[in-house]
Amino acid sequence: VSIREISIIGLGVIGGSLGLALRRSERCECEVVGFARSADTRAEALRLGAVDRVCESLVDSVSSADMVVLATPVRTMEEIFRQISDRLKPGAIVTDVGSTKADVARWARRYLRDKNLFVGGHPMAGSAATGISGARADLFEATVFCVVRDEETPVEASQALEQLVGWIGATPLVMTAAQHDQYVAGVSHLPVIVASALVTAAATHDEWDRMSQLAAQGFREMTRMAAGSSEVRHSLCSTNQKAITEWIERFIAVLKDYREHILRDDEALLDLFRDARQARRNWIQNRYKRN
Amino acid sequence: VSIREISIIGLGVIGGSLGLALRRSERCECEVVGFARSADTRAEALRLGAVDRVCESLVDSVSSADMVVLATPVRTMEEIFRQISDRLKPGAIVTDVGSTKADVARWARRYLRDKNLFVGGHPMAGSAATGISGARADLFEATVFCVVRDEETPVEASQALEQLVGWIGATPLVMTAAQHDQYVAGVSHLPVIVASALVTAAATHDEWDRMSQLAAQGFREMTRMAAGSSEVRHSLCSTNQKAITEWIERFIAVLKDYREHILRDDEALLDLFRDARQARRNWIQNRYKRN
Repeated sequence: VSIREISIIGLGVIGGSLGLALRRSERCECEVVGFARSADTRAEALRLGAVDRVCESLVDSVSSADMVVLATPVRTMEEIFRQISDRLKPGAIVTDVGSTKADVARWARRYLRDKNLFVGGHPMAGSAATGISGARADLFEATVFCVVRDEETPVEASQALEQLVGWIGATPLVMTAAQHDQYVAGVSHLPVIVASALVTAAATHDEWDRMSQLAAQGFREMTRMAAGSSEVRHSLCSTNQKAITEWIERFIAVLKDYREHILRDDEALLDLFRDARQARRNWIQNRYKRN
Repeated sequence: VSIREISIIGLGVIGGSLGLALRRSERCECEVVGFARSADTRAEALRLGAVDRVCESLVDSVSSADMVVLATPVRTMEEIFRQISDRLKPGAIVTDVGSTKADVARWARRYLRDKNLFVGGHPMAGSAATGISGARADLFEATVFCVVRDEETPVEASQALEQLVGWIGATPLVMTAAQHDQYVAGVSHLPVIVASALVTAAATHDEWDRMSQLAAQGFREMTRMAAGSSEVRHSLCSTNQKAITEWIERFIAVLKDYREHILRDDEALLDLFRDARQARRNWIQNRYKRN
């Protein structure tokens, strides 16, 4: 697939970093076009060099693109699909960087004419920063980038995204939307909910005022993710309800198991701690080897 | 209470840091005596200036002390109380820095002749380091130090420990052993178990091999505490069984509440996230103000 022009819709920390990474990449020769609702954001994206040019209109920004990347909050994507659908160049590949995939794929299927030229994407690159000012050219380097496809997705769409992923220094990992949503629910959404739930359990306790003076670094670290945007958390739960609630149930079953062994004060409790410690160690070693 | 000689039993990161802090303190004029089983540790403690002198024998190390601080693992303390009991100077105050308090108080009561001169202590200072080489003179600065007493504890014992806490730059917080154990179970032990349980839930999943490639910074942070010593975790659960299992139950109830609201996709879910976020923010602001 020959991609000469890429349009990035939404110039926040992810969209902006994507633009910076593409423009810096030696292998990418595309023109990068950007759209953001805010004029300030568009100006800042130009100033930082995150895009070659910006468009003031959403539909104009996609009209000559060979590939369109939606980098807006997931809840806005349905409306964007609806608006851009009949303004896309025939054969243009559409992708997104949303953090849940089943809903986005359904909207793509509903609104896009060339519905099969959609392929989902999700960069597993974390940033505490938000907005174009937090964009970094190396945000995706040595990270995993999910390429989310199903049986109907044509090979060229998936290949185009894998090519883009390579350009920005990430490693593509191909999977279905259902797999993706289940995986991220376990390793990303569940930890976020657990962080908030730890605060809720402690801070609603009668003696929290005194108790809180004993809370230290460990509590701070284990609840840091409760500090993020409540709206983002809420919308994430809405778009990945099933997988998240299944993981909460799975997690409760594991906690009950720990509780049983603590009550029995048995050797199996030591095994639980040891196995968890070893599994985490293996995971970290593998990640550093791969990336 | 006039304290002229303090004996520190156990020269690990806590005992060593306590010695360094006392010797550096301008208000403390005590001689600091140290005991450790290992000759290497004793030599290193002397070299680092954590003690004025060391003893090769446990019982000799307490014989002229006005205050004795047990800074060994909790599981060894019962035996230490037994051994030092009839070698203590009359009127000597005994304290400890163990991370659970009910068991230690019971052993003190059982073995010490002057059982009422015992007062429990627990510095809420975290260190990833272990051993004398990790000792730092400023470890306790601007931290909370629990002074654990009950109705039978005489005021002079509790005052002596509060004085020591002030010397090392920490803030004393007086409470009973039951309160202490309940508080630390909520803000310290529960988070540790949750960190391990998050790894267990994920790593025992059939598709962990693929899923683990999507795990990133958030998962790493939320499971970092699963990397600590499994034996320490196990012994911590043994010595604070009741409070920990009650907190696990409380936490499960909170998780079920989150799960219900995620299934209903309602506004109350947003409130849960918001309240947790705000409670954490208040906690952090108060801590920085106080300390």
